[in-house]
Amino acid sequence: MEFPGIGERVGGKHVIRGIYAPISTPFEQGQVSFPRLRGNLERWAATRLAGLVVLGSNGEAVLLDQVEKESLIGYVREHFPKDRPVIAGTGCESTRETIAFSRRAAGLGADAVLVITPSFYKGSMTSSALRRFYTEVAEACPVPVMLYNMPRNTGLNLPARVVVELAAHPNIVGIKDSGGDIVQIAEIIAGAPPGFVVFAGSGSFLLATLVLGGQGGTLALANVAADACAQLQEKFEGGDLAAARRLQLALIPLNQAVTSRYGVGGLKAALDLIGYFGGEVRPPLEPVGEAERREISKLLRDLGLLPA
Amino acid sequence: MEFPGIGERVGGKHVIRGIYAPISTPFEQGQVSFPRLRGNLERWAATRLAGLVVLGSNGEAVLLDQVEKESLIGYVREHFPKDRPVIAGTGCESTRETIAFSRRAAGLGADAVLVITPSFYKGSMTSSALRRFYTEVAEACPVPVMLYNMPRNTGLNLPARVVVELAAHPNIVGIKDSGGDIVQIAEIIAGAPPGFVVFAGSGSFLLATLVLGGQGGTLALANVAADACAQLQEKFEGGDLAAARRLQLALIPLNQAVTSRYGVGGLKAALDLIGYFGGEVRPPLEPVGEAERREISKLLRDLGLLPA
Amino acid sequence: MEFPGIGERVGGKHVIRGIYAPISTPFEQGQVSFPRLRGNLERWAATRLAGLVVLGSNGEAVLLDQVEKESLIGYVREHFPKDRPVIAGTGCESTRETIAFSRRAAGLGADAVLVITPSFYKGSMTSSALRRFYTEVAEACPVPVMLYNMPRNTGLNLPARVVVELAAHPNIVGIKDSGGDIVQIAEIIAGAPPGFVVFAGSGSFLLATLVLGGQGGTLALANVAADACAQLQEKFEGGDLAAARRLQLALIPLNQAVTSRYGVGGLKAALDLIGYFGGEVRPPLEPVGEAERREISKLLRDLGLLPA
Amino acid sequence: MEFPGIGERVGGKHVIRGIYAPISTPFEQGQVSFPRLRGNLERWAATRLAGLVVLGSNGEAVLLDQVEKESLIGYVREHFPKDRPVIAGTGCESTRETIAFSRRAAGLGADAVLVITPSFYKGSMTSSALRRFYTEVAEACPVPVMLYNMPRNTGLNLPARVVVELAAHPNIVGIKDSGGDIVQIAEIIAGAPPGFVVFAGSGSFLLATLVLGGQGGTLALANVAADACAQLQEKFEGGDLAAARRLQLALIPLNQAVTSRYGVGGLKAALDLIGYFGGEVRPPLEPVGEAERREISKLLRDLGLLPA
Repeated sequence: MEFPGIGERVGGKHVIRGIYAPISTPFEQGQVSFPRLRGNLERWAATRLAGLVVLGSNGEAVLLDQVEKESLIGYVREHFPKDRPVIAGTGCESTRETIAFSRRAAGLGADAVLVITPSFYKGSMTSSALRRFYTEVAEACPVPVMLYNMPRNTGLNLPARVVVELAAHPNIVGIKDSGGDIVQIAEIIAGAPPGFVVFAGSGSFLLATLVLGGQGGTLALANVAADACAQLQEKFEGGDLAAARRLQLALIPLNQAVTSRYGVGGLKAALDLIGYFGGEVRPPLEPVGEAERREISKLLRDLGLLPA
Repeated sequence: MEFPGIGERVGGKHVIRGIYAPISTPFEQGQVSFPRLRGNLERWAATRLAGLVVLGSNGEAVLLDQVEKESLIGYVREHFPKDRPVIAGTGCESTRETIAFSRRAAGLGADAVLVITPSFYKGSMTSSALRRFYTEVAEACPVPVMLYNMPRNTGLNLPARVVVELAAHPNIVGIKDSGGDIVQIAEIIAGAPPGFVVFAGSGSFLLATLVLGGQGGTLALANVAADACAQLQEKFEGGDLAAARRLQLALIPLNQAVTSRYGVGGLKAALDLIGYFGGEVRPPLEPVGEAERREISKLLRDLGLLPA
Repeated sequence: MEFPGIGERVGGKHVIRGIYAPISTPFEQGQVSFPRLRGNLERWAATRLAGLVVLGSNGEAVLLDQVEKESLIGYVREHFPKDRPVIAGTGCESTRETIAFSRRAAGLGADAVLVITPSFYKGSMTSSALRRFYTEVAEACPVPVMLYNMPRNTGLNLPARVVVELAAHPNIVGIKDSGGDIVQIAEIIAGAPPGFVVFAGSGSFLLATLVLGGQGGTLALANVAADACAQLQEKFEGGDLAAARRLQLALIPLNQAVTSRYGVGGLKAALDLIGYFGGEVRPPLEPVGEAERREISKLLRDLGLLPA
Repeated sequence: MEFPGIGERVGGKHVIRGIYAPISTPFEQGQVSFPRLRGNLERWAATRLAGLVVLGSNGEAVLLDQVEKESLIGYVREHFPKDRPVIAGTGCESTRETIAFSRRAAGLGADAVLVITPSFYKGSMTSSALRRFYTEVAEACPVPVMLYNMPRNTGLNLPARVVVELAAHPNIVGIKDSGGDIVQIAEIIAGAPPGFVVFAGSGSFLLATLVLGGQGGTLALANVAADACAQLQEKFEGGDLAAARRLQLALIPLNQAVTSRYGVGGLKAALDLIGYFGGEVRPPLEPVGEAERREISKLLRDLGLLPA
């Protein structure tokens, strides 16, 4: 197997691959702090991250107002190297608001948009409704669209069959699948056209996604361990399976801590510990306690991300 | 058992009781139609509804933009009889946006606010986080707050223990529980202070809620069958259990059709059929098909809401 | 509404109504203790229990071998008043074993059998499979069959529509529904022929079941609070709703403790505390600890079942 | 990475690795057919299967009586090559019955036993209860014990942390994990001592399990596609990832058809189609219909298991 470099195009589609960080949003005294963000962006730029996602779940997007959201897209695109994509999370509950926001995001410089499934009306989000939603968004959006399946937060799964159908649309370029159902990920890869990007949505199943044909991941973990994630992918693609596996098994405990176990508060604590700016979470989210912080600190040390 | 009349106060708290309709939002050509809304409001005013909820789940609140939401609150309060409460749904994902919107709603005339649980970060919505969220909202809100538990849409249950604790707050006056777990409803009633309002959140478990001590319901079904719902409660409270039961069993099929089975599209079809304005749903919601419309029509006829 | 007395027949069907206890199975040194059982049976006979269920979930039926099971049926029927029904739990995973065991149970004197849904092959237990299963059992069984829906243990719900269809079978006389979905219970009552018995499967939703038309309950709680449960039903049927509600709300904490919260171990601890024989649980079940025992003791005192 | 051959010992533990088939149980006119079984065993012996599991979920174990079960263990061990392990499924709800049956199975020649989690009392199956259950079984069982996690059927997950603790027991040699949670599989591999066997429990996540360090699988799919499964593992272990991935993606549709989609009936139809004896399912299971059979036939042809 050979792998294209980041940014190359294959079969006419823009190639998104490698490790993306869905970046944390820094707050100070309740407000978005752009100076703090700038410091973080400089640090992320110094890693092997292939790109960033702004306004993802880990970015507390649903807790931001519209002005904050649009400012963030513009600011991040402005202050991150131009040769690395910035993808904006633009999914809303209504089709029309998703379209309007996706267009604004494109205008603000987003290279692509990541669109989470609408989910409040779970019972009505049939395959037909989801197909129509994404098709209408893709038709109207001037930049490529990436599907975003996040059942843990939405309570809704985007079925593999629907993804495969949508993958035929020329402006739907990939999916971030955070569900972690590796069989579903395999079914998408098996059914979608070559070049359709399948990204692991969590660092804990990055290797499993890669072995089945995925091209990378958008990983909360990459906020704090970008190079280790990138190395995992490089080792795998370079044929050093044993090293890739060792990295994967080693990264899971920290990944679980900054995602499902301690959530955004855990991620921000980890950022603070390694010298980035993590800072406050926005209520109703709560910060982690001292015990959790110590556990995260230990996990960071175990990985060599903090001095022992 | 004696029951206070609608609008009376008991123990210093405003008494909310009886049947409320979480009203449907009429759209024409994609826009909110205030003339159509006015027609519906006049019809609802002619029923025995005790009050209305604007911007509930059935009102497609999550599909509306902020301008539409605020216009709707003002318009509904303006055009519905002053002696009947209008409650506004104001729950957002962030505490600060919920507070800001609740204050605006109060300024626009809402008699109380109905605040759904924040739910995107399910894993972080611990009892502690939920308690803090609702307490902060209640402290900041100039009108009474009603809790709103809607697990089917949010994927999150507001535990009975948390509700009981929050019920002690002077500005938290009740709960709309749409979960339908009758044991949880009983636990809330058993633990909350007298006067705390427990409302069935769906017409299918109204009688069960009443027998355990609930004071009414906020029922999608009441959009189309307000008087039958009010009659069920009157028969129950008047001691005619057999009649209340007959009504309850008879109402379930229509209730299920306009809620879990066919959703907002089903409710709007039913409104159209009985001479209200139902109209379009806003995408990604989809209208019901012809077969579903016929089934709903039959259910309405079975209840005498349409001529046989 | 009028209610037939226990044991009467209505419309040709045997009338099962009132409060049944799914009795606990006493072990000493790992073996079923028939002397201990006899002591308990004498105590239960002195209550207002309408009948017993032997080999229910609370009787640790799945932990018993076939010889123990058959001995228990015979022994309980022999040592409990003849005018009160003894129902035997006979559901197995295979149709043929369920039929064989139901026949044996009838031969041992069981007045009816209670047949839990087969559930290991959940994905294959379609409505068609469940309908066929129960129909074949009912055809082959010489005594009346009661359906048993227990989703918490089986992970499977017996849909209301299937129950309604099965209710037409002359040898299927009722259902014990432990799921607690009060809407489903209402749908069964609405759809089944008059005389079809709908029993609450847990003491926490007995009143809600009665108000919708149920005829009683098979309640773990009735092992330890038989008279309070019977009184709840009597108050309800006598029109004293306020008293019935007070009892219902008062019984819920103990009910939850001896069912979902502490399971069979909690039930046995409660039996020991009130002077019945509870004794050991059979592994892999574990006994409750001292803290749980104290909590159960307090709950029993709160209800007047233990001296304060 | 190097891999020991089947049957070798590493670190004092018997090495179970490669592809095992949890074999189908043939019935004719409702009875187990040993002649039909013998025919199948001869065919399986001609494949690259590393061993067999008798009395697994796919063997309809819960639908067999005790005499049938013991006869099957003895017969299969007798008629399958001695150098390939036969593992018997012996898990029951009670600890004592599981121990008794495991001892009998060992006496009948089983090389190891596969013990599913007891699950009827889900709420009581705490980590403590599960740890004690498996420890007591392992202590009493004369042959090695393999854990069996099957959440889809049991409604219960055996937590990774408990598996890791149990993996330290000298007589607990591995786990068949059918849950498909690849992160849990990784956590088990990361935490268990080297040599602890982690088997994929379904053909759809065999490759993902292998890349994380698993040693093979016990796969319903291996009843009908043993050599393709073995080839997948060989290609992976030989470093030909592209070929392993192609096989994995190709096998998923058939795997899903003979497991979650059509269950045991689907598996038996597939066996019939490829010239093994599938035959009847035992009620309440139902055979697949003609449309399903045609779909399975197409899937077999797509894989070259049937002539095109």
